Amino acid sequence: MTNPESATSILKDLGSRIVEDIENGRFPILELLDRRTGNIVFNDHSQEFILGASHVKRNSSNSRHVRSFSQLVWVASFAKQLLLANRTSSLRDLYYSSEAFGVDFTDQSESDRVVGDLECLTGLAREELGIFPEERSSVYGKVTMRYTVSGYEGKTVDLTISPDGLPIGPALMTAEPVESDAEIVLAVESGGMFSRLIETKAWERFNAVLVQLGGQAPRATRRLMHRFHKELGLPVYVFTDGDPWGMHIARVIMCGSANSAHVRHLTIPNAKWIGVTPDDIADFSLPTESMNNADLKRLDDLSRDVRYTGKDWQRYIEEFRELRMKAEQQAFSRHGIDYVVDTYLPEKLA
Amino acid sequence: MTNPESATSILKDLGSRIVEDIENGRFPILELLDRRTGNIVFNDHSQEFILGASHVKRNSSNSRHVRSFSQLVWVASFAKQLLLANRTSSLRDLYYSSEAFGVDFTDQSESDRVVGDLECLTGLAREELGIFPEERSSVYGKVTMRYTVSGYEGKTVDLTISPDGLPIGPALMTAEPVESDAEIVLAVESGGMFSRLIETKAWERFNAVLVQLGGQAPRATRRLMHRFHKELGLPVYVFTDGDPWGMHIARVIMCGSANSAHVRHLTIPNAKWIGVTPDDIADFSLPTESMNNADLKRLDDLSRDVRYTGKDWQRYIEEFRELRMKAEQQAFSRHGIDYVVDTYLPEKLA
Repeated sequence: MTNPESATSILKDLGSRIVEDIENGRFPILELLDRRTGNIVFNDHSQEFILGASHVKRNSSNSRHVRSFSQLVWVASFAKQLLLANRTSSLRDLYYSSEAFGVDFTDQSESDRVVGDLECLTGLAREELGIFPEERSSVYGKVTMRYTVSGYEGKTVDLTISPDGLPIGPALMTAEPVESDAEIVLAVESGGMFSRLIETKAWERFNAVLVQLGGQAPRATRRLMHRFHKELGLPVYVFTDGDPWGMHIARVIMCGSANSAHVRHLTIPNAKWIGVTPDDIADFSLPTESMNNADLKRLDDLSRDVRYTGKDWQRYIEEFRELRMKAEQQAFSRHGIDYVVDTYLPEKLA
Repeated sequence: MTNPESATSILKDLGSRIVEDIENGRFPILELLDRRTGNIVFNDHSQEFILGASHVKRNSSNSRHVRSFSQLVWVASFAKQLLLANRTSSLRDLYYSSEAFGVDFTDQSESDRVVGDLECLTGLAREELGIFPEERSSVYGKVTMRYTVSGYEGKTVDLTISPDGLPIGPALMTAEPVESDAEIVLAVESGGMFSRLIETKAWERFNAVLVQLGGQAPRATRRLMHRFHKELGLPVYVFTDGDPWGMHIARVIMCGSANSAHVRHLTIPNAKWIGVTPDDIADFSLPTESMNNADLKRLDDLSRDVRYTGKDWQRYIEEFRELRMKAEQQAFSRHGIDYVVDTYLPEKLA
């Protein structure tokens, strides 16, 4: 994480360059990597999405660019205000804040996109600028983190302090891991499974930091897992529902998404998807549901997705297609509520 | 909260009565309050939904009742296992667990309904039986709670320990408030507003315990607010979006819902909805959106709802109808990100 002082100075430099241009009678031009589909490439070597070399310009002398140029400059200025005031903002708040300045966004998806442009322009992730989405996932395990947010600077928190887990919000997102007794990160899709693994002390048994994803992992959550992986050296295991959506949650943690191709420090290429795999459904006699059309269409989409060119991934897709069935991670409860902890996970993590 | 020992003994008594009937050659009959619409009445005096006097039977000698009788007995037995093993279960897990026992539920909504029947039969809320939904909201403020869950018995936690708030999960839900410096409970709809109130130290300024609702408040959250209100004597204020949905979030906190008419210790009749009211939209020059058909239909529904017979509530509905506009609580950001804390809330809480 870039600290707030460095982030502020990057934004100040950006502003100074613009002012200098204007004072010298030049129309300022901002140049940033192109984030459109054509410039998003899958790096086979690192197994992640990255941006290609093509750039786009926001040229203030071009009347077609004036809107996007001023939106981008306003978002930069809003982010600087946040950093100077030690504040964070949700993406929604940012959208509404624009109204006071007469900066026009058609809707929040447009302001979200411009936040992405600013990330590209500055090389800073929006989290480093104090800008967050609303969704939260949770974490629990034997790691001590040191907060950096205002009012809590230097305070440490043990991630087992709350038996319900701790939300991965702006404060935890920007905290530093200082100590850990854990040996793995175990990310799970559902809140029910997360609670089960806490109360059965599975975190102690597997020496695991538990992460509750709640569907596609928010970026803050992927970043925190990435830090556990890089800074604490912990391997990452992902346990999801047994369907194309669950498999894709795991795959995005590994390879990233086109949307975040411009952001570094998110992907964990050697994370492992432990299941529920198509094999598990039969091997563990899980109660299933038939796949619906959306599930089958999703399999078709994934079969053409660059992230699924690997042999193992194509095999999973094929197996799901033949099975035409899916199973939730809760489905292990059929064999007793502790079965998943006593039998399934030890086998899969072995 | 009924403690686990008492809850277990209530379930054991239930089981003993059934066994006794069988041993004496009688078909056991379970009798519980009728939870169907016709028996749900609004108590004008207490301003909450309650059940009327009509009862229904699950008679094991009646072939049409055998299914619902055995479902109910199985859920009771599952709950007893949970209590004895110091475990909790999500409603989803309960549904899947039934498969192992050959107990048939068409889908989760049926097993959820039978959990409601068990609540009615025993007078115990599902939370007292260790059964929880997956959704979570969060809390932050100057209250110390003492945990009762296994592994954390007697440990206390200060609800300001995590600057991202603490999730209201099974552990916090069953914890006891032991000490508080707070003077009010301030419940807010969105996660963005919750974060804003934490980082601006609004909780200190207003001496408030902050609760993030995240839409319609989960029952665990309503129960925790109820305890803050009753056990700590704190008045409750609810701050939502300015639209029929936000207003109804507040109204359910006050009067409850038909679905939970059989559960006590949830409603807070003298909680206050502080806004965003239709007046606020004009008074604070908030950016608005036009109401869509779903919003307008919702106003029609609410105008006929027994919870809205009061003069003030009918007036709000009328004002929304005339305005045909809605505003989010984030909309105050138009006037600067701290405006809601520096100007709006002090005025409304005064």
